[in-house]
This record gives sequence, C-alpha cells and structure tokens, in this order.
Amino acid sequence: MDLLEQRILEEGIVLPGNVLKVDSFLNHQIDPELSMAMGEEFADIFSDVKIDRVLTVEASGIAIAVTTALKLGVPMVFARKKSSVLMTEPVYKEKVYSYTKKESAEITVLQKFLPAGENILIIDDFLANGEAALGLARLVEAAGSKVAGIGIAIEKAFQNGHQRILDAGYRLEALASISSLENSKVEFSEDNAVLE
Amino acid sequence: MDLLEQRILEEGIVLPGNVLKVDSFLNHQIDPELSMAMGEEFADIFSDVKIDRVLTVEASGIAIAVTTALKLGVPMVFARKKSSVLMTEPVYKEKVYSYTKKESAEITVLQKFLPAGENILIIDDFLANGEAALGLARLVEAAGSKVAGIGIAIEKAFQNGHQRILDAGYRLEALASISSLENSKVEFSEDNAVLE
Repeated sequence: MDLLEQRILEEGIVLPGNVLKVDSFLNHQIDPELSMAMGEEFADIFSDVKIDRVLTVEASGIAIAVTTALKLGVPMVFARKKSSVLMTEPVYKEKVYSYTKKESAEITVLQKFLPAGENILIIDDFLANGEAALGLARLVEAAGSKVAGIGIAIEKAFQNGHQRILDAGYRLEALASISSLENSKVEFSEDNAVLE
Repeated sequence: MDLLEQRILEEGIVLPGNVLKVDSFLNHQIDPELSMAMGEEFADIFSDVKIDRVLTVEASGIAIAVTTALKLGVPMVFARKKSSVLMTEPVYKEKVYSYTKKESAEITVLQKFLPAGENILIIDDFLANGEAALGLARLVEAAGSKVAGIGIAIEKAFQNGHQRILDAGYRLEALASISSLENSKVEFSEDNAVLE
C-alpha cells in the first residue's frame, strides 16, 4: 500500500534492535484518514473470502480493525490484555509474549463474542515475532471457528512471525512489508502483493 | 442519541452496584456502524468550537475517538495506560483510578503529540466517577492546551463524574445520559441535549 509505505518513509524512526517507531500515525497518534484507507484496503484484499467477524487485540489494532469491520459490514471484537472485573462470563484465554513490553500477557475474549463456526479475519498493526497474531489465531481455533486470514498493517518480514504464520497454514497479508531495517534504512519487500 | 439509547435498552445488562454492561456493542465487541454514527454525532455537537485534536485513553475510547477525529478532519491521540519501552521521549503523565478494575493507572502521552496552544476534544466511552476524563483534562492543561469539550458515549449522570466535570468548568456532552439504574432498569435523563 503506497500511502502507508510513504508515511513510513517520511515519519518512521528506526531504533537499534530492529525497532521501527510509527507512533505519529499508527499506534499512539492516529491518522484517522489513513486508518480508514487501511480498513478499505484490508476489506478489498480479503473480498474473495467470507468474513463474519474481525478480531484484534487492544490497543493499537482497534482503529484499523474497526474501519476494516465497517467496510466489511461485520462486527469487530478486541481481545483484552487485562481481564476486567466485569468479564464474569466464560472466556477464551491465550498467553502471548510482547518483545517490546518484555512481558507475557494473557489475551482474553468473552466466548459469547467468538461463536463457533465463523470465519474470522484477524487484524493487527504490527507483525514481528507473530506472538499476538498467533495468540489471536489460537483463540479463533479454541472457539471452533476458522481463521479467514491475518491482515497486518506493517510487518517486519525479516523477523520470524512471517514464517511462523505461513507455517501454521494461515493466509497473511501485510499492507507494508519491510525486508530490512539495517543501517537505520527502511527497505520494503519487492512484491507486497505476494506474501505466501 | 436515540440510536445509542435504543441499543442500551436492547442489549445493556444492569449488574449490582450500578454497573451497566454494554460489551456487545461498545467496549469489547464493537458495532462499527454505531461507532461511525457516534463519531458523526460528536463532530456535529462540537461543530461550534474549533478543535485541533481528539484525545482519548486506551482501549474502549479508541473506536469512537477515531471516527470523531475522522469526521472533524483532525488527528487523534490515545493516552496509554501502560508505558511502552519505546516511549523514551518526554511524556505527560497523570494518575487515574479505575473503579471497575479497582486499581490506579498512570495514563501517559508523548509530549510531542500534545503540543501547546491547541483546542482538544476529549472523547471516552463511559463516564461514572470522571477519573479518566479528568485525568485526560489534566494532561491537556499540563500541555498548555485548552479542553474544547468532553464527549462521552454513555454517562451515568447520577454518579459524581458529571458534576465534577461541570465544577471544573468543562463543557460536557453525553450521547446517552442515564439518570438511574435502580431495580435493574435503565432510565435516561429527560433532556440529553442540555447537560450544562
């Protein structure tokens, strides 16, 4: 997605340890028009499969998951990283590790919002090691539903999440696929359209 | 907002302790069309004031803050409840207490995303004791900006947040204002349009 790649080149900051900061438009300050454009792009990319529901995890995935769900005309559900005292009904839970926060979190969804037999599109802002995306996929499988695909705004294709998702048999689509951050320079994969 | 009141009556669940659960459309499962309608309504209500930026706090405020910001044509920023290891630049921080989670959290915004001299619209999904909204207002004041207004999807007007916000001199607009949850029955304030 050219619009997103352009913003990454203009505003992304590469830090040591293969970290790409895009907090000026994606995960702290949010550009609503870009969020809408990304939602439209995801809806378009996955228009060939039936999707009943969009699933993401709080917090940075919410803006693009809601715009994607809006364009698809389906509900969105976000998994919580911290259980609310109001979540007293049965839940699905999966443990995921965050490399940026350096801690494990249990992601939780109320079972009634992840009914069996559905086709679920997983959306998230970033893919690095694949912990969050694969945790969400396990929630979907636990619910007896099918992962229709995994849509990622920005993937660092040189880290192992990309391959882990393909190895698990899921369809992966990233709007911007980064092949290298070496020497603080962002390089995109040659063909974003073919990630499988 | 009739659409929101209708959904509350149809799907809201009243629990002991004046708790209203609306997790089927507002803060766990999200109805994207309703989120968009709420964003349009907020943009309309606050169309008489200049707004440079929308501010909310993760996670449930994000969906309606992004749709509001989209309609207003301004950026959105969400305060984080947990600092990321990537937030190494100067921040504004305020402590807020969550009655549903029974714990204090420090809400944090990078200073560069809350520049001085702006007019900020604060958006959140719920108002009860006003802790989150007033914490966000303190962030805005600390930044040297002005609170243009506080827009809330659902307020429990019988709890003290409503009065605390008015006492602090802020303009408060709720899309649905609940006057009572007694006997597990949702009652709305007579005139949502006049909350000041």
